[in-house]
Amino acid sequence: MARKTGSHSEITGPKIKQSALELFARYGFAAVTMRQIAARVGVQAGAIYNYTPDKQALLFDLLHGHMADLLARWAEEQVPSHPVAALDHFVAFHLDFHIQRPELVFISYMELRNLTEENFKAIEEKRSRYEKIVYDMILKGVLSGDFQVPDAKITSFALIAMLTGVVDWFREDGRLSSEELTRQYCALARQTLGVNALA
Amino acid sequence: MARKTGSHSEITGPKIKQSALELFARYGFAAVTMRQIAARVGVQAGAIYNYTPDKQALLFDLLHGHMADLLARWAEEQVPSHPVAALDHFVAFHLDFHIQRPELVFISYMELRNLTEENFKAIEEKRSRYEKIVYDMILKGVLSGDFQVPDAKITSFALIAMLTGVVDWFREDGRLSSEELTRQYCALARQTLGVNALA
Repeated sequence: MARKTGSHSEITGPKIKQSALELFARYGFAAVTMRQIAARVGVQAGAIYNYTPDKQALLFDLLHGHMADLLARWAEEQVPSHPVAALDHFVAFHLDFHIQRPELVFISYMELRNLTEENFKAIEEKRSRYEKIVYDMILKGVLSGDFQVPDAKITSFALIAMLTGVVDWFREDGRLSSEELTRQYCALARQTLGVNALA
Repeated sequence: MARKTGSHSEITGPKIKQSALELFARYGFAAVTMRQIAARVGVQAGAIYNYTPDKQALLFDLLHGHMADLLARWAEEQVPSHPVAALDHFVAFHLDFHIQRPELVFISYMELRNLTEENFKAIEEKRSRYEKIVYDMILKGVLSGDFQVPDAKITSFALIAMLTGVVDWFREDGRLSSEELTRQYCALARQTLGVNALA
């Protein structure tokens, strides 16, 4: 006799995460109750605890999963070795990843304040790893003479902020296609990093 | 006989705004009650309504005041006419204004979703005015040949995002002084806008 538990878990678990994401993004973590999340999923309030110990764990799952996903996907990328080509590749990757997840980007920024200290540290560690990838990429280009920047660390922050900011205004059905967006930001990122346009 | 009402209002009004700001930034607008705001100020729950009609009005006051303040201060600036000098001036102004108000920057981004439609529109109008100032500044430099950018509109968004992102990591007591921060970002902004380093 087939057991239903497995297939139910597989559906209900992701549904809970998705509902929590939507509610946190709409009302903020502190204003949302486990009861509201359960109601949105369509399960009894108590049943939700079969899937997650508490609201903090749900928040951590979302934020940590977001960063883990970002790092895992970047690790799978075939990044060109030339610094300028690597930059173009990074810009396309970062934009594509973030414009597909506006709610996760939003709560990842907004709800850091509501993480426990331990959970915050785990996410900060992953953020730092990603920032280091960008920093190393910039430094490599500075050392090869392809990039010219005032400070590689600050430039890495500036580049990430510039790219992630797209999430605030870009709409997939807007006047600008995602291909054109990427093209524009590749050109801007090259300028920001001091790539000689004639090189 | 001196009346106390005037002086009380002058102190209590700003105190309510400041307490609302702190609580909204810490817990999110939806999770904060008027009772909590009153308690933080040290007045009776009912007394707060002598100063503000409701929580929405408090949020609007904070967000609208922030944008009105930004526009008013920029209007007072003596901006140099040369595009590159104007850019440097803008970078210094934007950084200085925003790093002094991290909580207002945070809730101005985060709590747009909790504004009524009418209030949202009023703030969007002010934001658009500020974005237009940046766009016009970039366009002027493009037309004069001092800037070279793929698209002036997108570049204005990228520049604002790059600069405002500083609020997330810059600390006045950190390793970097605000003067050095400004110097670094002026150099980066010039590169982003395609200013010839040798010009």
